[in-house]
Amino acid sequence: MDNTNRSFKSWRLKQRPSGEIETTDLELVDDIIPEINDNEVLVRTIYFSLDPTNRIWMSDVDQYMEPVEIGDIMRAGGSLAVVEESKVEGVSIGEIVQGGMHGGWQEYFVMPASDIIKIPKDTGLPLTAFISVLGFTGPTAYFGFLDIGKPKEGETVVVSAAAGAVGSIVCQIAKIKGCKVVGIAGSDEKCKWLKDDLGVDHVINYKKENILESLKKSCPDGIDIYFDNVGGETLDAALTLMNKFGRIPVCGLISMYNDWSSTGPKMYRNILMKTLTVTGFLVSDYAEQFGECLESLGKWIAEGKIKYKVDVVDGIENAPTAVNKLFSGENNGKLIIQTSKEP
Amino acid sequence: MDNTNRSFKSWRLKQRPSGEIETTDLELVDDIIPEINDNEVLVRTIYFSLDPTNRIWMSDVDQYMEPVEIGDIMRAGGSLAVVEESKVEGVSIGEIVQGGMHGGWQEYFVMPASDIIKIPKDTGLPLTAFISVLGFTGPTAYFGFLDIGKPKEGETVVVSAAAGAVGSIVCQIAKIKGCKVVGIAGSDEKCKWLKDDLGVDHVINYKKENILESLKKSCPDGIDIYFDNVGGETLDAALTLMNKFGRIPVCGLISMYNDWSSTGPKMYRNILMKTLTVTGFLVSDYAEQFGECLESLGKWIAEGKIKYKVDVVDGIENAPTAVNKLFSGENNGKLIIQTSKEP
Repeated sequence: MDNTNRSFKSWRLKQRPSGEIETTDLELVDDIIPEINDNEVLVRTIYFSLDPTNRIWMSDVDQYMEPVEIGDIMRAGGSLAVVEESKVEGVSIGEIVQGGMHGGWQEYFVMPASDIIKIPKDTGLPLTAFISVLGFTGPTAYFGFLDIGKPKEGETVVVSAAAGAVGSIVCQIAKIKGCKVVGIAGSDEKCKWLKDDLGVDHVINYKKENILESLKKSCPDGIDIYFDNVGGETLDAALTLMNKFGRIPVCGLISMYNDWSSTGPKMYRNILMKTLTVTGFLVSDYAEQFGECLESLGKWIAEGKIKYKVDVVDGIENAPTAVNKLFSGENNGKLIIQTSKEP
Repeated sequence: MDNTNRSFKSWRLKQRPSGEIETTDLELVDDIIPEINDNEVLVRTIYFSLDPTNRIWMSDVDQYMEPVEIGDIMRAGGSLAVVEESKVEGVSIGEIVQGGMHGGWQEYFVMPASDIIKIPKDTGLPLTAFISVLGFTGPTAYFGFLDIGKPKEGETVVVSAAAGAVGSIVCQIAKIKGCKVVGIAGSDEKCKWLKDDLGVDHVINYKKENILESLKKSCPDGIDIYFDNVGGETLDAALTLMNKFGRIPVCGLISMYNDWSSTGPKMYRNILMKTLTVTGFLVSDYAEQFGECLESLGKWIAEGKIKYKVDVVDGIENAPTAVNKLFSGENNGKLIIQTSKEP
């Protein structure tokens, strides 16, 4: 294929945001699609993931991997792409692959043979399942809740950002494991979905209710596991009510991402007073156990025990505005950008 | 024995301190020594322990056990007492026992047969060993460092209050386990003891040095285990330098005990960024494993691998002023009050 006349768009980081991400912090750039070498494929992005961690990567605070450098293409937490050119044996044009760490906020990219993971065909599931519940958000919920949370039947589990891509799966796995589940979300509509469709026992709309007071009412036996996606005031309320030997998997701290100067929880002392275990984790550290995880999640989806929602925003140009929906809570399910049609 | 004319002194909590403990927050009261019933012993306190947790028990914040009630005898973290009267078969006058939860800031008390634990005779060790390294502080160091800290050979371990009763034992167990040890203490004299006598690799005098800068220099490979006794600024500095999968056993947060309104660590986010595990623990939760622990500690003491210091303050009347030495760092070893002579 002669690429010389073909260009693709990508979002490059222009400056580090102060506070909320502004469109002017990034730049939409046109580049020529590169030629591929032997043992490489050229892929066209169909979907890329928008995640709270995009905001971390835009900052230069010390973090779990290198931040995105100024001028570099914005990294994505996952993407799905279709092979348009292949110099890899066994990989054909039209096959769909995971972008892995090569995909980003871009329409085209090149991948080496060694990193190609094909999306299985004829699963009966929509392709978007593989960039949501069967991409990274499902496994994040699975490992964080089961490996770090160590749930026991009958325990009380509180989940923040409970209607989010990770939180909603945590709620459902907690129900499968026989826990009592309290979900905290930011709208009546989300709370209704959690309760009516996902079987969450109690819901709290944090935009309307006092979190601590509502948690006291909904957790008369205290909290055994607090699955934290947000940090801040919600973390403090949960810490206040944790039971002895409680566990706090730290999946995210989204309330801090726009303001790194914010302090830690006032109730930090309860880690000592209640002999708690607070553990940060990254799904990428569980790569070797993904097979087992995807098998369980797939089975639960097939049995109707796990439901998930995907919020597709069309057009690469909308990525910098859409990502802020994660911070305002306006998204409705796993947020992804669609940059081209599914084949 | 006719007790009617015999009185004993005890310190009772008069009001909850605001800030540092004042002598006027407690009251030294005279009471008549009680008669004992069948299956009880009357014991005379020889030593009782002063610990940072005394300050927690004086507060009414939610804590790991019930606070001491206003008007009640101040609880002690341990005591040694000699039997003066016995209605328990097999327990003789003159034998020395642990006070357990019955001992407090008091000269006499009664114990039921079921709670009596005798101190072994003819060990060659001074009696004070059994209210320090072989009482609770040694086991606190042992379980917190080994079970929560999970050290591996060659790892970098940072210990705050490193010259304290617990910290100094942690430093020495860490050396036994082949770790590199950095101790933080509050005087040049303590630092010298840590380095010259206990074999600590690097020492930091936090009253003279910037903790973060000194830790950066002494931990070029980052920190794998931070054994926290203090919280506050030291915790923040350690959090800043923790390595991926680092562990923080939370043994104490003494910098917060006089001001419960202090906030949590600014660098809390590193629990996520560095996938840390932060775990509060209490030595009392390890009661079933004390035998194994005391055997190891005894062996290490006999081999000269573990040294310990005891700071004996004479006279029950000095307890409320002496306890503040733990907060100013003026004590020199495990702080205990002697209320009567060893037999």
